[in-house]
Amino acid sequence: MAPKYKLTYFPVKALGEPIRFLLSYGNMEFEDDRFEREKWPSIKPSMPFGQVPVLEFDGKKTHQSIAICRYLGKQLKLAGDNDWEALQIDMAADCLTDLRMKLGSFFYESDEAVKEKKKEPIIKEFLPFFLPRLDNLVKENGGYLANGKLSWADFYFAGILDYVNHMAGFDITKDYANLAALKNKVLELPAIKEWIAKRPVSEV
Amino acid sequence: MAPKYKLTYFPVKALGEPIRFLLSYGNMEFEDDRFEREKWPSIKPSMPFGQVPVLEFDGKKTHQSIAICRYLGKQLKLAGDNDWEALQIDMAADCLTDLRMKLGSFFYESDEAVKEKKKEPIIKEFLPFFLPRLDNLVKENGGYLANGKLSWADFYFAGILDYVNHMAGFDITKDYANLAALKNKVLELPAIKEWIAKRPVSEV
Repeated sequence: MAPKYKLTYFPVKALGEPIRFLLSYGNMEFEDDRFEREKWPSIKPSMPFGQVPVLEFDGKKTHQSIAICRYLGKQLKLAGDNDWEALQIDMAADCLTDLRMKLGSFFYESDEAVKEKKKEPIIKEFLPFFLPRLDNLVKENGGYLANGKLSWADFYFAGILDYVNHMAGFDITKDYANLAALKNKVLELPAIKEWIAKRPVSEV
Repeated sequence: MAPKYKLTYFPVKALGEPIRFLLSYGNMEFEDDRFEREKWPSIKPSMPFGQVPVLEFDGKKTHQSIAICRYLGKQLKLAGDNDWEALQIDMAADCLTDLRMKLGSFFYESDEAVKEKKKEPIIKEFLPFFLPRLDNLVKENGGYLANGKLSWADFYFAGILDYVNHMAGFDITKDYANLAALKNKVLELPAIKEWIAKRPVSEV
Protein backbone atom coordinates (compact mmCIF):
# COMPACT_ATOMS: atom_id res chain seq x y z
CA MET A 1 0.00 0.00 0.00
CA ALA A 2 1.26 3.48 -0.81
CA PRO A 3 2.07 5.67 2.18
CA LYS A 4 -0.80 7.82 3.37
CA TYR A 5 1.33 10.98 3.31
CA LYS A 6 3.26 12.55 0.46
CA LEU A 7 5.55 15.51 1.09
CA THR A 8 6.51 17.50 -2.01
CA TYR A 9 9.44 19.89 -1.69
CA PHE A 10 12.77 20.91 -3.13
CA PRO A 11 15.65 18.45 -2.49
CA VAL A 12 16.60 20.30 0.69
CA LYS A 13 15.85 20.34 4.40
CA ALA A 14 14.76 23.97 4.98
CA LEU A 15 10.99 24.25 5.48
CA GLY A 16 10.35 20.63 4.62
CA GLU A 17 12.49 19.16 7.37
CA PRO A 18 10.31 20.03 10.39
CA ILE A 19 7.46 18.22 8.64
CA ARG A 20 9.70 15.22 7.89
CA PHE A 21 10.80 15.23 11.54
CA LEU A 22 7.22 15.18 12.82
CA LEU A 23 6.12 12.47 10.39
CA SER A 24 9.14 10.40 11.42
CA TYR A 25 8.53 11.01 15.11
CA GLY A 26 4.93 9.91 14.68
CA ASN A 27 5.98 6.83 12.74
CA MET A 28 3.75 8.08 9.91
CA GLU A 29 5.06 6.56 6.71
CA PHE A 30 5.45 9.15 3.96
CA GLU A 31 6.60 9.48 0.39
CA ASP A 32 9.49 11.96 0.44
CA ASP A 33 8.88 13.54 -2.97
CA ARG A 34 11.89 15.75 -3.79
CA PHE A 35 11.90 17.44 -7.16
CA GLU A 36 14.89 18.91 -8.94
CA ARG A 37 15.05 22.70 -9.05
CA GLU A 38 14.75 22.84 -12.84
CA LYS A 39 11.34 21.17 -12.61
CA TRP A 40 9.93 23.80 -10.24
CA PRO A 41 8.43 26.10 -12.92
CA SER A 42 6.33 23.20 -14.22
CA ILE A 43 5.31 22.08 -10.71
CA LYS A 44 4.57 25.52 -9.23
CA PRO A 45 1.18 26.12 -10.93
CA SER A 46 -0.24 22.89 -9.49
CA MET A 47 0.71 23.79 -5.92
CA PRO A 48 -1.67 25.79 -3.69
CA PHE A 49 -0.57 29.43 -3.91
CA GLY A 50 2.37 28.21 -5.98
CA GLN A 51 4.33 27.17 -2.94
CA VAL A 52 5.94 24.17 -1.31
CA PRO A 53 6.29 22.29 0.99
CA VAL A 54 2.96 20.62 0.32
CA LEU A 55 1.79 17.67 2.38
CA GLU A 56 -0.80 15.60 0.57
CA PHE A 57 -3.02 13.16 2.41
CA ASP A 58 -6.57 11.85 2.10
CA GLY A 59 -6.48 13.19 -1.46
CA LYS A 60 -5.96 16.76 -0.28
CA LYS A 61 -3.03 19.13 -0.60
CA THR A 62 -2.09 21.08 2.50
CA HIS A 63 0.48 23.86 2.54
CA GLN A 64 2.20 26.42 4.80
CA SER A 65 4.89 24.67 6.81
CA ILE A 66 3.95 26.10 10.21
CA ALA A 67 0.27 25.25 9.72
CA ILE A 68 1.15 21.70 8.70
CA CYS A 69 3.47 21.27 11.70
CA ARG A 70 0.75 22.51 14.04
CA TYR A 71 -1.73 20.06 12.53
CA LEU A 72 0.68 17.13 12.82
CA GLY A 73 1.57 18.33 16.31
CA LYS A 74 -2.08 18.01 17.32
CA GLN A 75 -2.23 14.44 16.01
CA LEU A 76 0.90 13.63 18.01
CA LYS A 77 -0.18 15.35 21.24
CA LEU A 78 2.62 17.88 20.79
CA ALA A 79 0.38 20.96 20.58
CA GLY A 80 -0.28 21.83 24.22
CA ASP A 81 -2.96 20.67 26.61
CA ASN A 82 -5.13 23.79 26.45
CA ASP A 83 -5.54 27.07 24.56
CA TRP A 84 -3.00 28.88 26.70
CA GLU A 85 -0.32 26.24 26.11
CA ALA A 86 -1.13 26.22 22.38
CA LEU A 87 -0.64 30.00 22.35
CA GLN A 88 2.82 29.68 23.92
CA ILE A 89 3.82 27.20 21.22
CA ASP A 90 2.38 29.39 18.45
CA MET A 91 4.20 32.47 19.75
CA ALA A 92 7.53 30.63 19.76
CA ALA A 93 6.96 29.21 16.27
CA ASP A 94 6.13 32.60 14.78
CA CYS A 95 9.24 34.06 16.40
CA LEU A 96 11.22 31.46 14.47
CA THR A 97 9.52 32.68 11.30
CA ASP A 98 10.60 36.22 12.15
CA LEU A 99 14.18 34.96 12.49
CA ARG A 100 13.97 33.11 9.19
CA MET A 101 12.47 36.08 7.35
CA LYS A 102 15.08 38.48 8.73
CA LEU A 103 17.90 36.26 7.54
CA GLY A 104 16.17 35.70 4.21
CA SER A 105 15.82 39.45 3.70
CA PHE A 106 19.52 39.69 2.92
CA PHE A 107 20.30 36.10 1.96
CA TYR A 108 18.11 36.17 -1.16
CA GLU A 109 19.32 39.60 -2.25
CA SER A 110 21.06 39.23 -5.62
CA ASP A 111 22.84 42.60 -5.59
CA GLU A 112 26.00 41.99 -3.56
CA ALA A 113 26.35 45.57 -2.36
CA VAL A 114 22.73 45.73 -1.23
CA LYS A 115 23.11 42.32 0.39
CA GLU A 116 26.09 43.37 2.50
CA LYS A 117 24.35 46.57 3.54
CA LYS A 118 21.25 44.65 4.62
CA LYS A 119 23.22 41.88 6.31
CA GLU A 120 25.21 44.05 8.69
CA PRO A 121 22.40 45.31 10.98
CA ILE A 122 20.81 41.87 11.04
CA ILE A 123 24.01 40.14 12.11
CA LYS A 124 25.22 42.93 14.39
CA GLU A 125 21.96 44.20 15.86
CA PHE A 126 19.02 41.88 15.27
CA LEU A 127 20.68 38.57 16.16
CA PRO A 128 22.38 39.86 19.35
CA PHE A 129 18.96 41.16 20.45
CA PHE A 130 16.90 38.17 19.35
CA LEU A 131 19.07 35.16 20.19
CA PRO A 132 19.58 35.84 23.94
CA ARG A 133 15.79 36.18 24.24
CA LEU A 134 15.19 32.93 22.39
CA ASP A 135 17.84 31.22 24.50
CA ASN A 136 16.24 32.58 27.65
CA LEU A 137 12.81 31.39 26.54
CA VAL A 138 14.20 27.86 26.34
CA LYS A 139 15.89 28.28 29.70
CA GLU A 140 12.66 29.45 31.33
CA ASN A 141 10.76 26.58 29.79
CA GLY A 142 12.95 23.83 31.19
CA GLY A 143 14.84 23.21 27.99
CA TYR A 144 11.94 23.53 25.53
CA LEU A 145 10.42 26.42 23.61
CA ALA A 146 7.15 26.31 25.49
CA ASN A 147 5.32 24.94 28.51
CA GLY A 148 8.26 23.01 29.91
CA LYS A 149 7.70 20.11 27.55
CA LEU A 150 8.33 18.90 24.03
CA SER A 151 6.09 20.47 21.36
CA TRP A 152 5.96 20.73 17.59
CA ALA A 153 7.74 24.10 17.86
CA ASP A 154 10.85 22.28 19.12
CA PHE A 155 10.78 20.07 16.02
CA TYR A 156 10.31 23.18 13.92
CA PHE A 157 13.34 24.80 15.53
CA ALA A 158 15.63 21.79 15.13
CA GLY A 159 14.28 21.13 11.64
CA ILE A 160 14.98 24.56 10.16
CA LEU A 161 18.26 25.11 12.00
CA ASP A 162 20.60 24.00 9.20
CA TYR A 163 18.77 26.36 6.85
CA VAL A 164 18.86 29.23 9.33
CA ASN A 165 22.57 28.65 10.02
CA HIS A 166 23.29 28.54 6.29
CA MET A 167 21.66 31.92 5.81
CA ALA A 168 23.33 33.45 8.88
CA GLY A 169 26.70 32.08 7.80
CA PHE A 170 27.40 30.53 11.21
CA ASP A 171 25.83 28.26 13.82
CA ILE A 172 23.42 30.56 15.66
CA THR A 173 23.43 28.21 18.68
CA LYS A 174 27.20 28.43 19.20
CA ASP A 175 27.03 30.98 22.03
CA TYR A 176 23.69 29.87 23.38
CA ALA A 177 23.82 26.76 25.53
CA ASN A 178 20.05 26.37 25.89
CA LEU A 179 19.46 26.54 22.14
CA ALA A 180 22.28 24.09 21.46
CA ALA A 181 20.92 21.70 24.09
CA LEU A 182 17.41 21.91 22.63
CA LYS A 183 18.72 21.15 19.17
CA ASN A 184 20.60 18.11 20.47
CA LYS A 185 17.61 16.93 22.47
CA VAL A 186 15.45 16.80 19.34
CA LEU A 187 18.15 15.34 17.10
CA GLU A 188 18.82 12.58 19.60
CA LEU A 189 15.24 11.36 19.79
CA PRO A 190 15.44 7.78 18.45
CA ALA A 191 12.97 8.39 15.60
CA ILE A 192 14.79 11.55 14.52
CA LYS A 193 18.21 9.88 14.72
CA GLU A 194 16.88 7.11 12.55
CA TRP A 195 15.44 9.59 10.01
CA ILE A 196 18.66 11.59 9.86
CA ALA A 197 20.67 8.43 9.28
CA LYS A 198 18.56 7.47 6.26
CA ARG A 199 17.58 10.83 4.72
CA PRO A 200 19.20 12.03 1.50
CA VAL A 201 22.23 14.23 2.15
CA SER A 202 21.76 17.93 1.36
CA GLU A 203 23.70 20.99 2.48
CA VAL A 204 20.69 23.07 3.42
CA MET B 1 -12.70 47.90 37.21
CA ALA B 2 -9.92 48.11 34.63
CA PRO B 3 -10.48 46.14 31.43
CA LYS B 4 -9.11 42.61 31.50
CA TYR B 5 -7.23 43.12 28.22
CA LYS B 6 -4.61 45.70 27.28
CA LEU B 7 -3.38 45.96 23.71
CA THR B 8 -0.12 47.84 23.26
CA TYR B 9 0.79 48.95 19.75
CA PHE B 10 1.77 51.87 17.56
CA PRO B 11 -1.04 54.39 16.87
CA VAL B 12 -2.02 52.54 13.69
CA LYS B 13 -4.27 49.74 12.52
CA ALA B 14 -1.80 47.37 10.77
CA LEU B 15 -1.11 44.25 12.87
CA GLY B 16 -3.03 45.57 15.86
CA GLU B 17 -6.37 45.94 14.10
CA PRO B 18 -7.27 42.24 13.67
CA ILE B 19 -6.82 41.86 17.43
CA ARG B 20 -8.95 44.95 18.10
CA PHE B 21 -11.58 43.53 15.72
CA LEU B 22 -11.71 40.20 17.55
CA LEU B 23 -11.83 41.80 20.99
CA SER B 24 -14.64 44.06 19.78
CA TYR B 25 -16.52 41.19 18.17
CA GLY B 26 -16.26 39.22 21.39
CA ASN B 27 -17.41 42.21 23.43
CA MET B 28 -14.19 41.87 25.41
CA GLU B 29 -13.45 45.26 26.91
CA PHE B 30 -9.85 46.33 26.32
CA GLU B 31 -7.49 49.20 26.95
CA ASP B 32 -6.33 50.40 23.54
CA ASP B 33 -2.83 51.48 24.53
CA ARG B 34 -1.34 53.41 21.57
CA PHE B 35 2.11 54.87 22.07
CA GLU B 36 3.71 57.60 19.98
CA ARG B 37 6.48 56.48 17.64
CA GLU B 38 9.15 58.50 19.46
CA LYS B 39 8.52 56.48 22.63
CA TRP B 40 9.15 53.13 20.90
CA PRO B 41 12.89 52.88 21.70
CA SER B 42 12.09 53.14 25.42
CA ILE B 43 9.19 50.67 25.20
CA LYS B 44 10.83 48.08 22.95
CA PRO B 45 13.12 46.46 25.57
CA SER B 46 10.15 45.66 27.81
CA MET B 47 8.23 43.87 25.06
CA PRO B 48 8.69 40.13 24.40
CA PHE B 49 11.26 39.81 21.61
CA GLY B 50 11.11 43.61 21.31
CA GLN B 51 7.93 43.55 19.29
CA VAL B 52 4.36 44.74 19.30
CA PRO B 53 1.41 44.25 19.18
CA VAL B 54 1.35 42.83 22.69
CA LEU B 55 -1.89 41.74 24.31
CA GLU B 56 -1.65 41.67 28.08
CA PHE B 57 -4.15 39.78 30.20
CA ASP B 58 -4.13 37.86 33.46
CA GLY B 59 -0.83 39.63 34.18
CA LYS B 60 0.85 38.07 31.16
CA LYS B 61 2.16 39.56 27.94
CA THR B 62 1.31 37.70 24.75
CA HIS B 63 2.74 38.60 21.35
CA GLN B 64 2.75 37.60 17.67
CA SER B 65 -0.42 38.91 16.05
CA ILE B 66 -1.43 35.70 14.29
CA ALA B 67 -0.94 33.63 17.44
CA ILE B 68 -3.02 36.09 19.46
CA CYS B 69 -5.79 36.09 16.85
CA ARG B 70 -5.87 32.30 16.84
CA TYR B 71 -6.11 32.26 20.65
CA LEU B 72 -8.92 34.83 20.68
CA GLY B 73 -10.57 32.95 17.81
CA LYS B 74 -10.68 29.82 19.98
CA GLN B 75 -12.35 31.71 22.81
CA LEU B 76 -14.93 33.05 20.34
CA LYS B 77 -15.57 29.72 18.56
CA LEU B 78 -14.05 31.15 15.40
CA ALA B 79 -11.22 28.62 15.11
CA GLY B 80 -12.85 25.65 13.39
CA ASP B 81 -14.70 22.67 14.79
CA ASN B 82 -11.90 20.15 14.39
CA ASP B 83 -8.20 19.86 13.54
CA TRP B 84 -8.84 19.80 9.80
CA GLU B 85 -10.90 22.98 9.90
CA ALA B 86 -8.30 24.65 12.11
CA LEU B 87 -5.65 23.74 9.52
CA GLN B 88 -7.64 25.39 6.73
CA ILE B 89 -7.87 28.59 8.78
CA ASP B 90 -4.16 28.47 9.65
CA MET B 91 -3.17 27.96 6.00
CA ALA B 92 -5.21 30.98 4.92
CA ALA B 93 -3.81 33.16 7.70
CA ASP B 94 -0.21 32.29 6.88
CA CYS B 95 -0.89 33.07 3.21
CA LEU B 96 -1.90 36.55 4.34
CA THR B 97 1.43 36.82 6.15
CA ASP B 98 3.19 35.87 2.91
CA LEU B 99 1.31 38.67 1.17
CA ARG B 100 2.18 41.14 3.89
CA MET B 101 5.87 40.17 3.92
CA LYS B 102 6.14 40.40 0.12
CA LEU B 103 4.72 43.91 0.16
CA GLY B 104 6.89 44.86 3.12
CA SER B 105 10.00 43.63 1.32
CA PHE B 106 9.90 46.69 -0.93
CA PHE B 107 7.77 49.06 1.17
CA TYR B 108 10.35 49.34 3.97
CA GLU B 109 13.28 49.70 1.58
CA SER B 110 14.89 53.11 2.18
CA ASP B 111 16.92 53.25 -1.03
CA GLU B 112 14.47 54.50 -3.66
CA ALA B 113 16.20 52.83 -6.61
CA VAL B 114 16.34 49.47 -4.82
CA LYS B 115 12.72 49.93 -3.74
CA GLU B 116 11.44 50.44 -7.28
CA LYS B 117 13.43 47.48 -8.54
CA LYS B 118 11.99 45.24 -5.82
CA LYS B 119 8.48 46.58 -6.19
CA GLU B 120 8.06 45.84 -9.88
CA PRO B 121 8.04 42.01 -9.83
CA ILE B 122 5.86 41.99 -6.74
CA ILE B 123 3.21 44.24 -8.28
CA LYS B 124 3.48 42.79 -11.79
CA GLU B 125 4.10 39.12 -11.06
CA PHE B 126 3.45 38.15 -7.45
CA LEU B 127 0.11 39.93 -6.94
CA PRO B 128 -1.43 38.79 -10.27
CA PHE B 129 -0.48 35.23 -9.30
CA PHE B 130 -1.48 35.42 -5.64
CA LEU B 131 -4.67 37.49 -5.65
CA PRO B 132 -6.76 35.37 -8.06
CA ARG B 133 -5.92 32.35 -5.90
CA LEU B 134 -6.90 34.13 -2.71
CA ASP B 135 -10.09 35.35 -4.37
CA ASN B 136 -10.86 31.84 -5.55
CA LEU B 137 -10.26 30.44 -2.08
CA VAL B 138 -12.95 32.76 -0.76
CA LYS B 139 -15.26 31.82 -3.63
CA GLU B 140 -14.78 28.11 -2.96
CA ASN B 141 -15.45 28.64 0.73
CA GLY B 142 -18.80 30.31 0.31
CA GLY B 143 -17.53 33.82 0.90
CA TYR B 144 -15.07 33.10 3.71
CA LEU B 145 -11.40 32.18 3.82
CA ALA B 146 -12.03 28.70 5.21
CA ASN B 147 -14.62 26.04 5.90
CA GLY B 148 -17.57 28.00 4.46
CA LYS B 149 -17.97 30.00 7.65
CA LEU B 150 -16.66 32.97 9.55
CA SER B 151 -13.30 32.43 11.27
CA TRP B 152 -10.60 34.52 12.89
CA ALA B 153 -8.72 34.50 9.57
CA ASP B 154 -11.52 36.60 8.06
CA PHE B 155 -11.04 39.16 10.81
CA TYR B 156 -7.32 39.04 10.19
CA PHE B 157 -7.85 39.70 6.48
CA ALA B 158 -10.24 42.60 6.98
CA GLY B 159 -8.14 43.98 9.82
CA ILE B 160 -4.82 44.20 7.96
CA LEU B 161 -6.34 45.28 4.64
CA ASP B 162 -5.79 49.03 5.01
CA TYR B 163 -2.15 48.33 5.86
CA VAL B 164 -1.74 45.91 2.95
CA ASN B 165 -3.39 48.37 0.54
CA HIS B 166 -1.17 51.17 1.81
CA MET B 167 1.95 49.14 1.06
CA ALA B 168 0.66 47.98 -2.35
CA GLY B 169 -0.33 51.53 -3.25
CA PHE B 170 -3.84 50.50 -4.31
CA ASP B 171 -6.86 48.58 -3.06
CA ILE B 172 -5.92 44.94 -3.70
CA THR B 173 -9.59 43.92 -3.63
CA LYS B 174 -10.59 46.26 -6.50
CA ASP B 175 -10.58 43.56 -9.19
CA TYR B 176 -11.57 40.71 -6.91
CA ALA B 177 -15.24 40.56 -6.08
CA ASN B 178 -14.99 37.77 -3.53
CA LEU B 179 -12.26 39.53 -1.56
CA ALA B 180 -14.16 42.81 -1.65
CA ALA B 181 -17.33 41.06 -0.47
CA LEU B 182 -15.48 39.34 2.37
CA LYS B 183 -14.01 42.63 3.51
CA ASN B 184 -17.48 44.25 3.52
CA LYS B 185 -19.02 41.28 5.31
CA VAL B 186 -16.58 41.64 8.22
CA LEU B 187 -16.71 45.44 8.31
CA GLU B 188 -20.50 45.37 8.44
CA LEU B 189 -20.76 43.08 11.44
CA PRO B 190 -22.49 45.25 14.07
CA ALA B 191 -19.65 44.98 16.60
CA ILE B 192 -17.04 45.87 13.98
CA LYS B 193 -19.09 48.79 12.64
CA GLU B 194 -19.37 50.07 16.18
CA TRP B 195 -15.62 49.71 16.74
CA ILE B 196 -14.75 51.46 13.48
CA ALA B 197 -17.08 54.34 14.35
CA LYS B 198 -15.34 54.95 17.64
CA ARG B 199 -11.71 54.04 16.95
CA PRO B 200 -9.04 56.74 16.60
CA VAL B 201 -8.53 57.79 12.99
CA SER B 202 -5.24 56.67 11.43
CA GLU B 203 -4.16 56.35 7.81
CA VAL B 204 -2.66 52.90 8.10
